Parts: sequence; structure tokens; C-alpha cells
Amino acid sequence: MPMPMRRLTSVGLRTGQGSVYLFDCGEGTQIPYKELHLGLRALKLVAVTHLHADHCLGLPGLLMLRAQMPDPEPLTVLGPPGLKSFIHHVRRDLGMYINYEIQIRQWTDNGSPVAHEDDEVTIQWRPLNHSVFCLGYRLDEHTRPGRFDPAAAEELGVPCGPLWGKLQQGQAVETPTGDQVEPDQVLGEARRGRRVAFVTDTAPCDSMPLLMDGADLVLVEGMFHSEHADDARAKKHLTVEQACGAAAGAGAEQVVLVHLSPRYTNADIPRLVAEARQHHPRARVGRDGEMFKIEAPQ
Amino acid sequence: MPMPMRRLTSVGLRTGQGSVYLFDCGEGTQIPYKELHLGLRALKLVAVTHLHADHCLGLPGLLMLRAQMPDPEPLTVLGPPGLKSFIHHVRRDLGMYINYEIQIRQWTDNGSPVAHEDDEVTIQWRPLNHSVFCLGYRLDEHTRPGRFDPAAAEELGVPCGPLWGKLQQGQAVETPTGDQVEPDQVLGEARRGRRVAFVTDTAPCDSMPLLMDGADLVLVEGMFHSEHADDARAKKHLTVEQACGAAAGAGAEQVVLVHLSPRYTNADIPRLVAEARQHHPRARVGRDGEMFKIEAPQ
Repeated sequence: MPMPMRRLTSVGLRTGQGSVYLFDCGEGTQIPYKELHLGLRALKLVAVTHLHADHCLGLPGLLMLRAQMPDPEPLTVLGPPGLKSFIHHVRRDLGMYINYEIQIRQWTDNGSPVAHEDDEVTIQWRPLNHSVFCLGYRLDEHTRPGRFDPAAAEELGVPCGPLWGKLQQGQAVETPTGDQVEPDQVLGEARRGRRVAFVTDTAPCDSMPLLMDGADLVLVEGMFHSEHADDARAKKHLTVEQACGAAAGAGAEQVVLVHLSPRYTNADIPRLVAEARQHHPRARVGRDGEMFKIEAPQ
Repeated sequence: MPMPMRRLTSVGLRTGQGSVYLFDCGEGTQIPYKELHLGLRALKLVAVTHLHADHCLGLPGLLMLRAQMPDPEPLTVLGPPGLKSFIHHVRRDLGMYINYEIQIRQWTDNGSPVAHEDDEVTIQWRPLNHSVFCLGYRLDEHTRPGRFDPAAAEELGVPCGPLWGKLQQGQAVETPTGDQVEPDQVLGEARRGRRVAFVTDTAPCDSMPLLMDGADLVLVEGMFHSEHADDARAKKHLTVEQACGAAAGAGAEQVVLVHLSPRYTNADIPRLVAEARQHHPRARVGRDGEMFKIEAPQ
């Protein structure tokens, strides 16, 4: 639940082009969204893990906030079955004015983990194991072309100018003297995009390693210290050990624990971090409003 | 809308016995409710003015917060037609766990302004004039018995003890020597309870003077400075002049302006106060988390 000293968990992933993909949207999310200046026009998609209030009650307010700008692009909203009904009812019951199309996509068991694809990213969703149907997410930036080698291009007779741009975009070109130059003659190896997983709320389950596999950053619930493992089991949540152990097993680079139990005050965080570090050397606890920069792989 | 520097308007009235009556409940209201330590068990009633998101989207979260204590009393929720449907749909769509009865009372045109009455207060509601159906509220504490005169009681032969308590509660007693003593022989004049009005969002309308009449405190929207009177008219809101003028005309003791337009930053507040003071000498602008003590009339 939202508390004076800690807000509900919501994560905005911003790409190099400035697009924002938001994961979960509990009550009050629109306020830090504004504080962090992420930009409303930049918001492309909201992915909801499940229909517990602390993960989705901020959605109506965010939808209305986004309706205050002229001519917004359509917004994609991903989530579990029942999401459409929730949004539909709130819109109707409160007479919400929305000046853009909301493209709601509910999970279906169609055999594919791909939830969304656009010109920047692919987003996967996989069912987790919680007290209600819950989805874990993974965002993969598209692979980028390899690094361009200007010396090689000049050597092959391609003059600096628009032809370089075409090669960088992966197109073959003809030099002024009539030679054909292929992109792979002037480009290094393709560079993978960044990979981020968002996993909350769940008991340990088979989807976790698939979502976290080789991620640059795993955002995962740190709901319970292992001393409260019984509560974690009863409520179908993870312990810090389980969360960080799974990320380490999946070869994830960094772990940020989110969605802490309200029983833990900020004074308890060092204990949670201590347990996390035993299971992943680069684990930490996320704080309200914190920003993490993920370097693009070279 | 909720903003980093200013929350949505919600007012909790706490009686001398500690009961809390909450007026409006926008997104995030549960956080200051906790910060101010008003007490969840103390919350008796929530009154919603209208079904615009900024006045009611915090209700589901507050209902769930209240479900975290064991054996809560039933909660009364007052509001416009459509409120039941909103609460019903959110409860169902989000599978909300509520361990107490929610007694929802929607306004109907039954000729009586009385919305609620209990052993402490009477609450009235009256339709305002907004872009959607909207209610103004007034809370009247019950009249208290007059001040007890111990000297008069002793003179009439009533010894200090339980008989005094009965007289204070308005019951006749018999003295040890067999004389009958009536309460009005030992009690001063009955003392009226406190009166508070909550009026937002509306164009000027006939309900305003009825709700504000002789109030100790009027909480009323200060949505627009008079220089933006055109906006106020177009959006069916009050200017500060209209709000404070109505309170002064109704003989209200004090005015607190709430529900300011997001166009006004905190730096604009002195200008709003300056206008308010021209129309009511004891007008001010309410700040987040501010407490106002209303002395009980003697």
C-alpha cells in the first residue's frame, strides 16, 4: 500500500529516443511521473502485472492526465484478462474524458510470449504464480547495426555523405566509380539492445529464469526478508534470497529490489540489501524516484 | 489534478469524541490520511461531492486500507447517483477484499436535505450547479446540554455523585429527601454544536447560502481568481470573490479556500488570499495537511 515514506512500485523505462514504457501503475503514480519529467507525450505503453489495487489503481488518473495534452498518440495498455473491464467501467462510471485511443491488449494463452513490438522494443509477458493471475514482463531493445568504419568506407571508394548513411542503415550502395559496396564490408558486428525484466508479485516459478535470462537489469520484488519466508510462501511472494538467486542464476547483470512489504521501514533496508548481496553481487534496493542508467552494449 | 506541490482536496472533520467524517477522496488521499494520524477506526463516513476522478478515485484505496484492521465497523459512504455503480464495479473488477459493510447512500430528490444522522452529527447535502451532478455538504454537531451548575444542584439537595451525571444528561432525579429536581433547574442554556460547510465544485447557486448559513467554518473552492472569471463561468466553478462573498453573506465565521486550479502555483496564493480578504475578513487558503481547530460554542 502507498505509505508516507514509500510510494507504490512503478517503473518507467526510457529508451535512447526518449520513449517511455511504464510497468505497473498503483495509486498516485501520476505524481512521481510528473516529478521526474518523463514526459507525457513520450509515454507509449503501460504494462500492468495484475489487477490488485496497488498495481493498477493509478491507471485511470494517468489516462486522464495524458488527456490534457492536445492530439495524443494512441496508448497501448497490456495486462491480464479483466483489465479491459476495469478500464471500461471506470471510464463509464466517472465519465472520463479521453481524447485518444486506448489499445488494450489482454494476455491470452496463444503460445507466444510476445506482448508488444514496435520500432524500438519487443515486450514479452509470461504468467507468474500469484494469488491472482499475474504477469511478468521483459523488454528487449532491438538489435542495433554494428559500428560504422569510416576508413573502410573511404578505402572502398564511398565518399563521406548520404551513401554512408545508407550503409549505416544496412543498405548496399554503388560508389561513384560503379563499385558495389555491401554494409557488412563497413559495419562491425551487430550490437544487441538492452534487456530489462520486471517481475512482481509471484512465488518462485518457471517463468522467472526465462524473463530474467541475460538481462542487463532485473527489477524484482524484494517483498520479504528470508526470516519471513513463511509469509512469502503463504502470500505467494518472493523472499529476497529467491529473487536475487533467480536473477544470478539467469546471468542478470544487476538487480534492483522493488515492492517491499510495508512492514519494512527505510531503517530495515540495509538488512534487505545485506541478504540480497549474498545472492547477487550487484543487488540493491530501489528508492522512490531513483534513476538507473543502463549503458547500451557495444 | 494531484501535483507534486499540491495534493487533491479532501477534508477530514474530527469531532471531540474523535470520530472522523471525510469529505471527498481523490487519488492518493489515503497517504495524508495516514500522515495526519486521524485513525482508521475513527473513520465513520465518507461524503463524495461528485463523480469526477479528482474527487473520488482515492476511495477504493481508502476502502482497502480500512480493511486491514480486524473487525471494522460498517462505513457510510454518501454521494451522487452512480456512486454505487462505481464502487461495485471497482470492487468486482479488482477482486477487492473488504471485511466490513459499506453502506452507500446515493442522493435522491426526496424533499429532505438530511443525508445522515448519528449520535454526534447531522449531515445535509444539497445539489450544486456543476458540469455533472454535484453535492454540497454541511455538518452540524448536535446541540449539547447547557453548562451544569454544581452550586445550584447542592442547594437543591442533590449530592455530588451519580445523580449529577443523570441531571447533566437531561434526566430528572429524586433527592435523598424525596424532592424532584428537573435538569433545567441546574443546567444553563443548551449550547449549539459546531457547523461546517464543504462546497465544491459549482457555479454560484441557491444551495450555497443554505449550506453556509451561520457556519463556523466554510471550506469552499477557490478555483479561480476573478481575473479568470470567464474560465470559472465556462467550467462552472467559483471565483474567489464569489466563494468568499457567499460565505460572508451567509454569516460564516471563517473561510478556507480549497481546490485551487492547477494553474496557480504556491507563489500565486498570496494573490488569491488578497482577493479573498476583500470579501471575507477571515478568509485564507488551506495548505496540504493543515489542521484547523474550531472552538465549541459556549
